[in-house]
Amino acid sequence: MVDILHRVGIKSSLDEVYKALATRESLAAWWTKDTQGESKVGGALQFRFSDPDGVELGGFDMKVLELDRAKRVLWQVIEGPQEWIGTKISFDLRQEGKYVMVLFKHAGWKEPVEFMHHCSTKWAVYLMSLKSLVETGKGAPNPDDVKIGDRD
Amino acid sequence: MVDILHRVGIKSSLDEVYKALATRESLAAWWTKDTQGESKVGGALQFRFSDPDGVELGGFDMKVLELDRAKRVLWQVIEGPQEWIGTKISFDLRQEGKYVMVLFKHAGWKEPVEFMHHCSTKWAVYLMSLKSLVETGKGAPNPDDVKIGDRD
Repeated sequence: MVDILHRVGIKSSLDEVYKALATRESLAAWWTKDTQGESKVGGALQFRFSDPDGVELGGFDMKVLELDRAKRVLWQVIEGPQEWIGTKISFDLRQEGKYVMVLFKHAGWKEPVEFMHHCSTKWAVYLMSLKSLVETGKGAPNPDDVKIGDRD
Repeated sequence: MVDILHRVGIKSSLDEVYKALATRESLAAWWTKDTQGESKVGGALQFRFSDPDGVELGGFDMKVLELDRAKRVLWQVIEGPQEWIGTKISFDLRQEGKYVMVLFKHAGWKEPVEFMHHCSTKWAVYLMSLKSLVETGKGAPNPDDVKIGDRD
């Protein structure tokens, strides 16, 4: 098993960062505009993506496993690309001075396939979008996301 | 052992991307302005970083292990933070239509420590700087790099 790991520091409060990770409206403002479902433990969220021409690229369904206020969010992928199914995505929060440190983990990849390289970079870009949303009020969710290759 | 993996697609030729990874001048234009040494097999490169106030943050010395024209660059860390010593950093290039796919690996971390999370995100940011340098002629090397936390 191999994991994607990231960390960003966001100048904000734990409550604000947690809200950006735990509410559907905020997820739609930094990850993908097409976010549906319910952010509650036992519920599921549907994230869908499209390219700059509006062509649908598919997406992921996540079961919400943990919502620990101001501390931790944990999802498990229940639908999506084969490599993603069963993997877990967590965000752990910690205040450090004026910054909230977000430790991100996308755990449980079976193999370090090339698609994992892509997703690792893309997660970094989206975490920077999360940081921007919380610090400035404006994120860059798909389809307005920063492109790391040609279509996505 | 755990690895940091990334992939970016750069609209360019293999030769141009290779040049950006294999010459001291280009490394200084996307990773850190303070790049010294010789980019030749068996030689060493010294990368040094500073924060926005000019405070030195340290850096890394890399031994150049492979320079495979238009295909691959491989370094090994010989000086730097304890966690980096002995790790290897590779860039593998492949043309795919109008894009050069850069597969990046920072391999051989002993443990997935928090510093590794930070470095993973920061590598993504610097690879986007590499992409920008090659595609537009302008990168964002340290100390003008995109900050992911407070000082770096």
